Amino acid sequence: MHIGFLGLGNMGSPMASNLLKAGYQLSVFDLSSNAVAELAEKGAQACASVQALVAAAPDVLISMLPAAVHVKGVYLGSEGLIEQLSKPTFLIDCSTIDPHSAREVAKAAQEAGHRMLDAPVSGGTTGAQAATLTFMVGGSADDLQYAQPILQAMGKNITHCGDSGNGQVAKVANNMLLGISMVGVAEAMALGVALGMDAKVLAGIINTSSGRCWSSEINNPYPDVLENAPASRGYSGGFGSDLMLKDLGLATEAARLSKQPVMLGAAAQQLYQAFSLQGHGSLDFSAIIKLYLKE
Amino acid sequence: MHIGFLGLGNMGSPMASNLLKAGYQLSVFDLSSNAVAELAEKGAQACASVQALVAAAPDVLISMLPAAVHVKGVYLGSEGLIEQLSKPTFLIDCSTIDPHSAREVAKAAQEAGHRMLDAPVSGGTTGAQAATLTFMVGGSADDLQYAQPILQAMGKNITHCGDSGNGQVAKVANNMLLGISMVGVAEAMALGVALGMDAKVLAGIINTSSGRCWSSEINNPYPDVLENAPASRGYSGGFGSDLMLKDLGLATEAARLSKQPVMLGAAAQQLYQAFSLQGHGSLDFSAIIKLYLKE
Amino acid sequence: MHIGFLGLGNMGSPMASNLLKAGYQLSVFDLSSNAVAELAEKGAQACASVQALVAAAPDVLISMLPAAVHVKGVYLGSEGLIEQLSKPTFLIDCSTIDPHSAREVAKAAQEAGHRMLDAPVSGGTTGAQAATLTFMVGGSADDLQYAQPILQAMGKNITHCGDSGNGQVAKVANNMLLGISMVGVAEAMALGVALGMDAKVLAGIINTSSGRCWSSEINNPYPDVLENAPASRGYSGGFGSDLMLKDLGLATEAARLSKQPVMLGAAAQQLYQAFSLQGHGSLDFSAIIKLYLKE
Amino acid sequence: MHIGFLGLGNMGSPMASNLLKAGYQLSVFDLSSNAVAELAEKGAQACASVQALVAAAPDVLISMLPAAVHVKGVYLGSEGLIEQLSKPTFLIDCSTIDPHSAREVAKAAQEAGHRMLDAPVSGGTTGAQAATLTFMVGGSADDLQYAQPILQAMGKNITHCGDSGNGQVAKVANNMLLGISMVGVAEAMALGVALGMDAKVLAGIINTSSGRCWSSEINNPYPDVLENAPASRGYSGGFGSDLMLKDLGLATEAARLSKQPVMLGAAAQQLYQAFSLQGHGSLDFSAIIKLYLKE
Repeated sequence: MHIGFLGLGNMGSPMASNLLKAGYQLSVFDLSSNAVAELAEKGAQACASVQALVAAAPDVLISMLPAAVHVKGVYLGSEGLIEQLSKPTFLIDCSTIDPHSAREVAKAAQEAGHRMLDAPVSGGTTGAQAATLTFMVGGSADDLQYAQPILQAMGKNITHCGDSGNGQVAKVANNMLLGISMVGVAEAMALGVALGMDAKVLAGIINTSSGRCWSSEINNPYPDVLENAPASRGYSGGFGSDLMLKDLGLATEAARLSKQPVMLGAAAQQLYQAFSLQGHGSLDFSAIIKLYLKE
Repeated sequence: MHIGFLGLGNMGSPMASNLLKAGYQLSVFDLSSNAVAELAEKGAQACASVQALVAAAPDVLISMLPAAVHVKGVYLGSEGLIEQLSKPTFLIDCSTIDPHSAREVAKAAQEAGHRMLDAPVSGGTTGAQAATLTFMVGGSADDLQYAQPILQAMGKNITHCGDSGNGQVAKVANNMLLGISMVGVAEAMALGVALGMDAKVLAGIINTSSGRCWSSEINNPYPDVLENAPASRGYSGGFGSDLMLKDLGLATEAARLSKQPVMLGAAAQQLYQAFSLQGHGSLDFSAIIKLYLKE
Repeated sequence: MHIGFLGLGNMGSPMASNLLKAGYQLSVFDLSSNAVAELAEKGAQACASVQALVAAAPDVLISMLPAAVHVKGVYLGSEGLIEQLSKPTFLIDCSTIDPHSAREVAKAAQEAGHRMLDAPVSGGTTGAQAATLTFMVGGSADDLQYAQPILQAMGKNITHCGDSGNGQVAKVANNMLLGISMVGVAEAMALGVALGMDAKVLAGIINTSSGRCWSSEINNPYPDVLENAPASRGYSGGFGSDLMLKDLGLATEAARLSKQPVMLGAAAQQLYQAFSLQGHGSLDFSAIIKLYLKE
Repeated sequence: MHIGFLGLGNMGSPMASNLLKAGYQLSVFDLSSNAVAELAEKGAQACASVQALVAAAPDVLISMLPAAVHVKGVYLGSEGLIEQLSKPTFLIDCSTIDPHSAREVAKAAQEAGHRMLDAPVSGGTTGAQAATLTFMVGGSADDLQYAQPILQAMGKNITHCGDSGNGQVAKVANNMLLGISMVGVAEAMALGVALGMDAKVLAGIINTSSGRCWSSEINNPYPDVLENAPASRGYSGGFGSDLMLKDLGLATEAARLSKQPVMLGAAAQQLYQAFSLQGHGSLDFSAIIKLYLKE
């Protein structure tokens, strides 16, 4: 099977590499010729443009792009993939974008005779390299069955979330909750310590009580509570604060379009925006606790 | 050993019963003579006043009262327990109050020659009846060792949180995080469903992803996601919204006194206050999702 | 001078009427043929389509549309006004949309040889009828000078806000502050009354103190404080809550795109969204005080 | 008439001086002997203790203290003023405290045969020196009439807010709204400028539109919009951020006790708390805009 891959950034590049490892024939394109060259060295066919990728006529085309504006730009319109592909193609967009855009693109694809899944991921660059990503997939069950082996070459957990766009819905809902939880853990830890508790003791109690959550157990934001968490190495690595900010923006925008209030989601977004303005956007998102600690 | 027990409400009454079951000699007092009579039938010595309880000269005195104003009223001042007790007594306050008040009372007790622990609980009336409460204990390790068998007659998990007041700190920090998480889960579930997802599928994804928390796994607020959760029986039973409101008030007040910001904690408090104003204070605290669902 | 007018809703219709009264030659189009017919009776030339309006070749073209999606749809693309107009035309968009979209349209217009102003209004349907609207104008000073008599036929205050898009910026910034102030006044009034004050006395004090603002002086949300305010007639008339919700959405979206935090702006948006979900979107935006009063 | 004055801080000291200037006989006490000595030089009778002040048997006793804990400490209990004063005395507490405490003290005073007003002020140290303070007075109309000349010696606007405690209610409600408005203006100005507007032009538009408020007109937080505002001199002078934080704390605490939601009030409090944690508490409260501007 011949797969085309569009978007070779920090995530797309190792994902594409894993497809090569799994034995797929691969054609790739990215605006960075370096990124393309790197994959070519590993055995991919280098394409110099989206047009060249289209001309290569892959059976399956996977995209991993930064935002909805890029996804819509690449897929839609008279110059877009959906119009240009000369045969029905199986499309998988792994970008994290808002559900409304994902559905708009999927609808256009299906109307033009293509099949399409939205399949945003979680797991970060580590997961992309280790092929342990989680895919949250929106689209028909049949289409997911077809794509299953491809996704399994890049990830570990493949979850069917329902119809087109629901992969994005699941991601946006989960990550909004993640952002809220992280700020909540930051506030609870900082408050407890300010009131005289030892951080490790407090984390231990929370983790065996009703306050426990992923952010307290796996990525506790208080320094030196968890040896291997970003908080214990200056908040380097991990899932960047500006990426969390982006996802919270997707969540509140999706909420606005669906006329749904998200009071804490919006508050968390604003806190990450303020944090970014102070110059901390590249730190792991657990660094938000800096808003609550004296310098 | 002779134990005095002060405060026989929904929590105190079953706790006192469990002390009787464990074989302790028990003297009890409450403003409700019915509550006192009920315990007397089970074998406790009925006291008609705090003075009578003092006169009974227990070795250990446990209190379980609604708020700091009652705790301070009972313990402090020239008419208070600390002054009136004729011999050094081991005091255990199981009320949930703010850490500053807990420390004020403990300090007064210790200066008068008594030993004292703050030991707020979680687990609700179910835990109180089944003797499966969690105790979060503040005070010296020696004092906790002394009280251990008594607490074990009423609960299952006894956690040492550090010095006086730290039991309250742990409870307040954990419950603030719990309140934030619950609102966060409510927002994420309501958003996901509004965007077209099935509630059970979404909960399943969150519970295996980074959004997972006690509120999503054990007390999911969306109706019919968890068969035995309050959300699937009209939000009856459980931990009342107004009790969560009280705990969030303790948290923000403790934060104010320690000059610590708690942005989401304060937002959660205000949401529960608005919810209470709309007449829903007696529902389980997961009912906060009503703010996010169309009637 | 021949003016084309596109969009004859509650605002556009009386604005167009005022241009007729001022003696301008007018061609009009709207999707509602009734609205077109009504203007035709007053002396306007009825156009059956955007194409017909283009064919009428007006010197100036004014649009008053509900949202950015309509403005972009009408102006941009190969079928859009900017491409289709056969001669350089003076364009004035009076719609309230986000600044980024306004600038995108203005840039496209200018590149195609047209002149363009963004000129959103405040003053509501009353102001539109009485020709007392305020115009917040973005574009060059020369262009504003040219348009001045036209705008003065429809309004009273014409403010130059700077370059293209700045009319929208001014409106969005002002209305975000208005929404925040209104919620603030609602909270302050409800709190003061709950604490035992007379509403009129409290309003009087605020209006002569540092809390005074347009929302407390002109549109006080507490019933019966101001005889002629919407609050004293069941919140009918006035500026609808859902219109405030729309403007707060424009503000937070513009803030997101410019990486600017707006914590209270976002909170106000969410409160209006929750209020709308409860079915109150058509009430005057001062009705938000209902969130703070017992039924 | 002989007046006793208790509390000679930044506010109390100039207020007491103005009473001397108006010809009143004055006895003063403060924990700072320097402050007492300074007033003594101007003609006041120095008292070395509260007891000495009581012994001086003034007809009217005015207090100006930092917080409720001091007011209650001085007035209540067997050692307090209310018990110790040997004759019915006219009491005026000018401290800013929570309404519940104010009412508790007033009730105790009245039960002991004294008359009492709560009369918190606004106008800052400048107003205290120039005798242009605003007094917000709670108590009976008769009592206010009696006190009128005394208050007029220290201030310009004397407002009757209703029964005991209502002076505090008015202050707390007004200042909560002031804090919300200031943050709102900060967000609107920072957003508008980030989107490309000139700060002075934007302020001009807001001040003639529905966003206008005291904070935009008199104390605009954006630098160099108003020549004489704190924002144009590095935020020195003015009403300190930590004083605004204190008043927002009084408001949210009063709201909690009266079961009233104050969502934006609580959010503003938390923002000032975060700002204070970053070390800016002594700057004018308009400096909160720093949270919204890049360094």
